[in-house]
Amino acid sequence: MKFTADRVSLLKVLTTVNVAIGQKSPTPAFLNFKITMSDEGLQVLGSDNDLTITSILPIKDGDKELITDYSTGSTLISAKYLIEIIRKLEGDKVTVEIIDEVIAQISDLKSNFKLNSMKSEEYPNLDLMIIGENVELKAEEFKKVISQTSFAASTKEIRLILTAINVKSENGIASFVATDSYRLAKKTANIEANDFETNIPVKTLVEVSKLIEDNDVTMYIASNKVVFKFGRTVIYSRVIAGDFPKTSRMIPTKYPYELKVNASKFIDAMARVSLLSVERERIVKLSMNDDNVEISSKSEQIGSANESIDLYEYSGGRFNISFNVDYVSDAIKATQSEDVILAFAGEMNAFKITAPGDDTLVQIITPVRSYY
Amino acid sequence: MKFTADRVSLLKVLTTVNVAIGQKSPTPAFLNFKITMSDEGLQVLGSDNDLTITSILPIKDGDKELITDYSTGSTLISAKYLIEIIRKLEGDKVTVEIIDEVIAQISDLKSNFKLNSMKSEEYPNLDLMIIGENVELKAEEFKKVISQTSFAASTKEIRLILTAINVKSENGIASFVATDSYRLAKKTANIEANDFETNIPVKTLVEVSKLIEDNDVTMYIASNKVVFKFGRTVIYSRVIAGDFPKTSRMIPTKYPYELKVNASKFIDAMARVSLLSVERERIVKLSMNDDNVEISSKSEQIGSANESIDLYEYSGGRFNISFNVDYVSDAIKATQSEDVILAFAGEMNAFKITAPGDDTLVQIITPVRSYY
Repeated sequence: MKFTADRVSLLKVLTTVNVAIGQKSPTPAFLNFKITMSDEGLQVLGSDNDLTITSILPIKDGDKELITDYSTGSTLISAKYLIEIIRKLEGDKVTVEIIDEVIAQISDLKSNFKLNSMKSEEYPNLDLMIIGENVELKAEEFKKVISQTSFAASTKEIRLILTAINVKSENGIASFVATDSYRLAKKTANIEANDFETNIPVKTLVEVSKLIEDNDVTMYIASNKVVFKFGRTVIYSRVIAGDFPKTSRMIPTKYPYELKVNASKFIDAMARVSLLSVERERIVKLSMNDDNVEISSKSEQIGSANESIDLYEYSGGRFNISFNVDYVSDAIKATQSEDVILAFAGEMNAFKITAPGDDTLVQIITPVRSYY
Repeated sequence: MKFTADRVSLLKVLTTVNVAIGQKSPTPAFLNFKITMSDEGLQVLGSDNDLTITSILPIKDGDKELITDYSTGSTLISAKYLIEIIRKLEGDKVTVEIIDEVIAQISDLKSNFKLNSMKSEEYPNLDLMIIGENVELKAEEFKKVISQTSFAASTKEIRLILTAINVKSENGIASFVATDSYRLAKKTANIEANDFETNIPVKTLVEVSKLIEDNDVTMYIASNKVVFKFGRTVIYSRVIAGDFPKTSRMIPTKYPYELKVNASKFIDAMARVSLLSVERERIVKLSMNDDNVEISSKSEQIGSANESIDLYEYSGGRFNISFNVDYVSDAIKATQSEDVILAFAGEMNAFKITAPGDDTLVQIITPVRSYY
């Protein structure tokens, strides 16, 4: 196997595929790129067994030759070292050649590297079938859905199912739900697809949304996996088995107290007041009546803080509630709206954050008991 | 005590003084700013006992009123919280007022904080005398001296004396020497001062060089401390007791092999080749003869790399030496020169790095035994 490739284009392909490769693995072969040169182009594959990415560097892109002087073949090369070498080389073109079967020689006009490599037969067999219900999503739409929901998923693996986003298609409407059991984000979108339901690791969705750039994406949903296809890249991910919690119970139906505020001013005020909240808890109290809306915090050891909100619309009479500042800030930011509506059902009930006029995104947050 | 101050100017003074304040301290008072309002201005003091900084926010700076509506007095306020509050407030002016002796009320037009504070009598007594031999240094000169030597000092406290820069004045010439025993940086400068010798913690010198901005600095050297004065700020530091090692023995006198290279090209080539050096050791081999200069590395497990240097001047015949890439890169960067000269005494002798035509800075590095 041999090829001379445009260095920057090759680096881009390697960087994309490298997202699937871990820092360590019980299977050493998984620390390698599987590189296959054929007349269709250079295919690079990387995997940690849960997530697999393949991407192709074509021989020509329009008129531009990306690969020259090649002979077909396949090999495994250390992802960590190959990517560092290709990044640090200065030449426009780089030549990779397998010599003696297990040495990859990498060179430009200046530098010369001999990297110990492995035969491609040593790579584990992976299921690379593309099957299942498919849904097409525009790049912008996909990225927005993920950024508006992913932060609410759990980062703790104790309840593995909560590290997934529940994706459900029903009668042409898709819903994306994430919850860590203290808060919930639910986004809906119209789609053309048959009904399905799956739980996709939030990590996978975040990585896909970073990698797609301005490419529209097709998702293929099968029982035990999901495949994303965009440009010359295919991403295969396991899905998380088990039933996602019935989240509709978390969402109140009536909200007698409703506050509309400027999103960034409200976030800034919470950030200031929460400076004096007890450090690990980040809790503030919101006190509202018809004449005044105030955020306050209190810590025996440190002191107290309070700030009145300038611009607001409030209806519902005297009402107090305490909550975690970061949860509320995350939810407000996710609306991507200048103004937001906080709607409350009661002091110990979950409350809702939405953007005015947008019913596609609902954020639900559980309050905390107030200490003062 | 009460004052209303220009918020941004106050924040600058607090940020400067905060450099001396640690994250924790056996003496809780040291986690506070000592703030004293008098007719001379607002003095802020911070200390961790080893390093003490005082800075003054004057009542007026030229025509600009920086402090209004004040009453004199003194208090201790938590550095961590005060600096965060002043940073996050939005008003142009901020008012600080001591109420009930142990509560500091901090407010602008919007936000209101009550911070538990302490009486100023609870602050430990510090030696704030400014005495000793004094030396004046231009801002640029001081910053250059520190950046060219500080990296060579030890960061390990096992031999405390090596965490200092040895500063010596002899017959109108000052020398600044730092060494971690594997490498050494020595900078000399002409000064007007009596003879003295002291060992100043490198941490102090680095902090001072960050804080002086474009202010010239006066150093006062006494037996057990050093004081730096610039603008409206004074920095007091302990010095490190004990004798600095006699470093002149580390420096060879004859260099039969001499290589001149472009600094940045040589650094880039070392960075590439060292990608395949055994990870913790970062060692490369430099092989020179009259026709070729080459950098190479080799690791049994990973592979090998080599690169010829393009532009060089070499005299001395066939010669090989191995060294730590980071030590050589640091030393080359410190010269701030486009070209550098590496001069070698022998394969197992320390070697010298200098900039052509500049004899004020000498860098010495110990080689390592070559593995191949």
